[in-house]
Amino acid sequence: MTSNRVVVYKGPLETAIEDIDYPKLEIPAEVAEGMGIKQAAPHAAILKVVTTNICGSDQHMVRGRTIAPVGQSLGHEITGEVVETGDDVLFVKEGDICSVPFNIACGRCRMCNEGKTGVCLNVNPARPGAAYGYVDMGGWIGGQAEYVMVPFADFNLLKFPDRDQALEKILDLTMLSDIFPTGYHGAVSAGVTTGSTVYVAGAGPVGLAAAHASQLLGASVVIVGDMNAERLRQAESFGCATVDLSTSGELSDKIAEVVGEPEVDAAVDAVGFEARAHGEGAGEQPATVLNDIMSVARVGAGLGIPGLYVTGDPGAADDNAKVGQIGVKLGLGWAKSHHFQTGQCPVKRYNRKLMNLILADKAQIAKAVNATKISLDEAPDAYQQFDQGAARKYVIDPHSMVA
Amino acid sequence: MTSNRVVVYKGPLETAIEDIDYPKLEIPAEVAEGMGIKQAAPHAAILKVVTTNICGSDQHMVRGRTIAPVGQSLGHEITGEVVETGDDVLFVKEGDICSVPFNIACGRCRMCNEGKTGVCLNVNPARPGAAYGYVDMGGWIGGQAEYVMVPFADFNLLKFPDRDQALEKILDLTMLSDIFPTGYHGAVSAGVTTGSTVYVAGAGPVGLAAAHASQLLGASVVIVGDMNAERLRQAESFGCATVDLSTSGELSDKIAEVVGEPEVDAAVDAVGFEARAHGEGAGEQPATVLNDIMSVARVGAGLGIPGLYVTGDPGAADDNAKVGQIGVKLGLGWAKSHHFQTGQCPVKRYNRKLMNLILADKAQIAKAVNATKISLDEAPDAYQQFDQGAARKYVIDPHSMVA
Amino acid sequence: MTSNRVVVYKGPLETAIEDIDYPKLEIPAEVAEGMGIKQAAPHAAILKVVTTNICGSDQHMVRGRTIAPVGQSLGHEITGEVVETGDDVLFVKEGDICSVPFNIACGRCRMCNEGKTGVCLNVNPARPGAAYGYVDMGGWIGGQAEYVMVPFADFNLLKFPDRDQALEKILDLTMLSDIFPTGYHGAVSAGVTTGSTVYVAGAGPVGLAAAHASQLLGASVVIVGDMNAERLRQAESFGCATVDLSTSGELSDKIAEVVGEPEVDAAVDAVGFEARAHGEGAGEQPATVLNDIMSVARVGAGLGIPGLYVTGDPGAADDNAKVGQIGVKLGLGWAKSHHFQTGQCPVKRYNRKLMNLILADKAQIAKAVNATKISLDEAPDAYQQFDQGAARKYVIDPHSMVA
Amino acid sequence: MTSNRVVVYKGPLETAIEDIDYPKLEIPAEVAEGMGIKQAAPHAAILKVVTTNICGSDQHMVRGRTIAPVGQSLGHEITGEVVETGDDVLFVKEGDICSVPFNIACGRCRMCNEGKTGVCLNVNPARPGAAYGYVDMGGWIGGQAEYVMVPFADFNLLKFPDRDQALEKILDLTMLSDIFPTGYHGAVSAGVTTGSTVYVAGAGPVGLAAAHASQLLGASVVIVGDMNAERLRQAESFGCATVDLSTSGELSDKIAEVVGEPEVDAAVDAVGFEARAHGEGAGEQPATVLNDIMSVARVGAGLGIPGLYVTGDPGAADDNAKVGQIGVKLGLGWAKSHHFQTGQCPVKRYNRKLMNLILADKAQIAKAVNATKISLDEAPDAYQQFDQGAARKYVIDPHSMVA
Repeated sequence: MTSNRVVVYKGPLETAIEDIDYPKLEIPAEVAEGMGIKQAAPHAAILKVVTTNICGSDQHMVRGRTIAPVGQSLGHEITGEVVETGDDVLFVKEGDICSVPFNIACGRCRMCNEGKTGVCLNVNPARPGAAYGYVDMGGWIGGQAEYVMVPFADFNLLKFPDRDQALEKILDLTMLSDIFPTGYHGAVSAGVTTGSTVYVAGAGPVGLAAAHASQLLGASVVIVGDMNAERLRQAESFGCATVDLSTSGELSDKIAEVVGEPEVDAAVDAVGFEARAHGEGAGEQPATVLNDIMSVARVGAGLGIPGLYVTGDPGAADDNAKVGQIGVKLGLGWAKSHHFQTGQCPVKRYNRKLMNLILADKAQIAKAVNATKISLDEAPDAYQQFDQGAARKYVIDPHSMVA
Repeated sequence: MTSNRVVVYKGPLETAIEDIDYPKLEIPAEVAEGMGIKQAAPHAAILKVVTTNICGSDQHMVRGRTIAPVGQSLGHEITGEVVETGDDVLFVKEGDICSVPFNIACGRCRMCNEGKTGVCLNVNPARPGAAYGYVDMGGWIGGQAEYVMVPFADFNLLKFPDRDQALEKILDLTMLSDIFPTGYHGAVSAGVTTGSTVYVAGAGPVGLAAAHASQLLGASVVIVGDMNAERLRQAESFGCATVDLSTSGELSDKIAEVVGEPEVDAAVDAVGFEARAHGEGAGEQPATVLNDIMSVARVGAGLGIPGLYVTGDPGAADDNAKVGQIGVKLGLGWAKSHHFQTGQCPVKRYNRKLMNLILADKAQIAKAVNATKISLDEAPDAYQQFDQGAARKYVIDPHSMVA
Repeated sequence: MTSNRVVVYKGPLETAIEDIDYPKLEIPAEVAEGMGIKQAAPHAAILKVVTTNICGSDQHMVRGRTIAPVGQSLGHEITGEVVETGDDVLFVKEGDICSVPFNIACGRCRMCNEGKTGVCLNVNPARPGAAYGYVDMGGWIGGQAEYVMVPFADFNLLKFPDRDQALEKILDLTMLSDIFPTGYHGAVSAGVTTGSTVYVAGAGPVGLAAAHASQLLGASVVIVGDMNAERLRQAESFGCATVDLSTSGELSDKIAEVVGEPEVDAAVDAVGFEARAHGEGAGEQPATVLNDIMSVARVGAGLGIPGLYVTGDPGAADDNAKVGQIGVKLGLGWAKSHHFQTGQCPVKRYNRKLMNLILADKAQIAKAVNATKISLDEAPDAYQQFDQGAARKYVIDPHSMVA
Repeated sequence: MTSNRVVVYKGPLETAIEDIDYPKLEIPAEVAEGMGIKQAAPHAAILKVVTTNICGSDQHMVRGRTIAPVGQSLGHEITGEVVETGDDVLFVKEGDICSVPFNIACGRCRMCNEGKTGVCLNVNPARPGAAYGYVDMGGWIGGQAEYVMVPFADFNLLKFPDRDQALEKILDLTMLSDIFPTGYHGAVSAGVTTGSTVYVAGAGPVGLAAAHASQLLGASVVIVGDMNAERLRQAESFGCATVDLSTSGELSDKIAEVVGEPEVDAAVDAVGFEARAHGEGAGEQPATVLNDIMSVARVGAGLGIPGLYVTGDPGAADDNAKVGQIGVKLGLGWAKSHHFQTGQCPVKRYNRKLMNLILADKAQIAKAVNATKISLDEAPDAYQQFDQGAARKYVIDPHSMVA
């Protein structure tokens, strides 16, 4: 039996690599019991992990901002080679290199039928929706590992058409498991289309992905806002305009300097609940970013909200925020007839389209998010650097398969 | 020159009928100056008012919950007969009986081109969007009057095909100027479709209209919630299930008693910012209803929010609410991948469809909202009764034209 | 081993009941070989057939208008009780009563992911799309039988929530496998919505289903056209207006008599390639119905085309029609900016919604199509009566389970 | 009074420049009489023509393929400077440089309200829809002239934000009046989106515009087919793949050489009714292109049909084609569940978006279609060259305003 190693949460700001069992073709016991189905999984496949990225949402756990227990395995951005399949895996074969959507989905329930794989009803007894290596998400083992089990493999896996081509473009393709679709979902649900002016709040990887997705959707101008100078320079590196939120002044004035009017056609919140108020030394204000994007989105606009808002935030500044209740300027949004799209991106809705774009050399997402390859053993250090604001997207390469 | 009389706000809970000038083919001076256009309005028509309804949003003003000045003329739900037209009114003729959308719109700006007539850019210098007889909405004279001027008449007016038929069905058709489309907009934007289970919060006229619209859209079950027993009985009168919010117990449990599960496919907030917490003696909690509908809407659902939320509420209980910032459980909505549609209903998007349904005897909106005909002089008294929770929709008939 | 019997095509206008093997959890050899997958089907279930309907598209075969070989098993409108499941059937259980969409779909390919189950890529090596008991559709055994095998059962089966309720409403629920969704698809893709005037060409079961679906979608007026007086009376029985195509006169004039103008908002072709020209003694003219609906659909309208058009019609009147090339008045459609939706209905897109409506007593599809229960042995006779234009929808009840 | 000159049809393959009256603020008498409205047009503006392009649909007239009378004025692709406005033109001012959508629309009827300006009900008594300088389209004077009258100017005109910038980019902006939106409409209605593979039939200006629009919509590969080598090279000049239809071989094989499979995600017919069969010396076959695109479009695909199909074609090869009835392989389309969008592009739906893209230097439509500036007097010669297949889009500059 092959060994296996995985990144594990060890307490606030601490992670480590630990040995775990090689995956079995079985679903977690808590899912089997909770859903009343058997644990044996003829629908599952085991993947040798080719690449697996560190995500901003992993950081919520690593910062101790969730109820993740010590020992929680990490990693939901997975690309891998199929090395074993169950009896009912018919269309994916050993040797295929595939992208794994971070949302685990059964492909058989009403929500999956409607394309809403982010809220699958059959993979998490606690609530709809599940993910690999995430607290309160069904107990599925994380994929920042050497090997990982993927259930409902024919449904979940997106096969790359050619192995060599896939390995060549792997730093772009690895973004298909989460942030490229997530950024694209933010842009699409904000209504970005041909000619739009767009404001993206947050220049972390999801914000940068939303910005690049906006370009690909035909935006005329994309403006990215952040307080981190390095991240703003990263946004500029692929053609975005930027606004520096660490300086004084109204956001609408800063927008006007770029597009000649104090508003944009579409806006994306790529920050979420750990938002800070603007200006030097400002503390956390969880609705800041959402209220900001309402203030600059044109009447009738859509607001895409890929940034995570949570139902429980033990580390929040006040009691309301601890249960996910935040001070939204709803009157402003209502006066402007805004519409809002929240929630996890249903990755399968977009990953094939975006793969086709990457394979045709029409998207440069690795460059946009500054993909940076590391080994599995370098992951704990990368978590620390990412937490300190490095303008990088770390891509773990556990088997040294990436050129 | 014919005389004219109109309902006027006289201070908290007080209205009166006053004489005003017969309308001219001119737009308000503040609009002409603010937009840099001339006051003469060859695009306008003057209507003899056939019916004009009292609206829940009028009550926000009459209760003193806005900054409406004493003397503000009232009335934005207008149906009338064209009696005079400007030089550029080509398609609407004298004698036509027409419904007037409460949103005043130019038909020529980007927003009107996109069908977003609720946020027209050319009719209110203060912000996009305007209405007749409403504070901070452009200074257009109210239509709870004998005569009223309608600008951009070819664009704004919906002509009824036959005069006699129109007068015969006038108590239904009068609802096309606002609440029938507004309720329909709430239902449509919540995603109500064939087979949906629906929860409508609020059994005032807009809630009842949303409930009836849900039926017309093919809902399998429509549940209406309120704390007013008379209004709940009104909802039951046309086939809705109800939940009584004045009693203890979780809303989700009450929903489950009706549909066998604690959630619905779509939910509508037909209350808005003057929401109260549930249970006896409960005070105002402006986000109560919005948080309620999130709690019972299924994952992936839409939330229609025709209930009004304001940017300024001088009478609010706390400083945040005074500027329209309220405690929304956004984490809950996000976990459920909800989407939200806010804002004024763009009446023109729906009024022709709904007219066709009324004329074919397929919609009974007058019965659903308990339309009650009164004279112009009875309006002040009707305002009081409506404020006290009467389960009625008051329809003013200034010229005794309604049979 | 339980025995099994099925309706079989024996030559033009001839069918018989024959013994066949009890189903196995295996897919057809031609599919397994053609797709390069194994024949064993852990994803499959065996159903005891509760009801199974005779369809107009079965008649194309039985009339000898296709290349169906003698011995072809028939039946793709199936409702049944699960009696056996494979190892990877997790969510459907023995004893569940379920509707079976006539389109066989894998739930795992790109088309299924996009909701286009009518053109699934993995169930028919000859072309996308498959069905039970149909020529050139993958070799799947027909369901006008006692027992039938359903592959990808968790994906394909729609479970009814309550067994007793299901059996009570079975004559309505049995229409969910094909014609109710098919008629609804025709109406939806024609753009039928609140207040629409609708013309449905053809008063066979699909036409009647499209007419009832139009009512449920909120049409203000539904007009059905046919040359068969009995079928027109059937359409009138549930509130449709009718036009008799066997009499002289322009269709647009007949429409105008009903709605006061010579056109409608939406039109549905529920006839397809076996269309006849109008008037007494008229022969086949395959594009007649399509050209008809273009002539009466308003500018900008949609045309729903659930009626079947084929790529090969050996019995056609001319060489072009034999390969499915027919004389379409495309110039007319283009001048009117029409849009057209063709193809099989993807049943899964609609069957749950329509089930909910039936279970809530809001749809009376059995009454609309005049559902008529027969035994399996009566099927050959029913085929003959249906061919002669009986205004009935025959529902086979092989195990006498229907009350 | 300023003089005026316009291009006029003089008989098959012959055009000339003739003097006509300077425009008045009046609509054509036939429209006024037919619609029952007055001729005086306070809603109209007079434009000094800055640029006006020769269109492939002008050629249908010039080739004698329509019933255009000798003396018909030409030109519906107009960009101009406002020099005079009627009393009810409020938002467009003298000096504004504006694009004029080729579809004349009132902005006040049901179709305009729904965004279907290509089939406006109030501008042509003969049928819905009108255009400048076109046979059977309402009698509006053509714009290949020095001056032209535009009715409903506030609705129809798209103002460029800055005069100098507009003149600098005028060869791109001039394409907003027709072919850029028309090509975009073809691509959008075919469903082109992120990652699509696209086949565009026809490398004339509309085909090239559809190809460029597909790139802007995020296509991964765009393939253009034609029989004209020069036009294919033009398509290659901005990054399209091409297939040469003048050589033998199946179209699907040629597609497969480019994308590795014999089909594409979306297909556009940018040719229309004057299509020829493939191969050397092939004659006209009006449904060739439409049948071609069905043969290579994937199952479930959309087909955009901006190419013109007519209701009357006196010069057609057979009696059916003379009335616009052509041999469509509908069985093939049906088997593939295709959907079809026909009709004039409603320019207003897209022109603002595409203007924003041009002004942001994100679209190079002038380069894509090889815009070639000429004087008004050179127009007759340009018509001849265009008829002979010149890979150019001729832009007339009547006042030598283009640098």
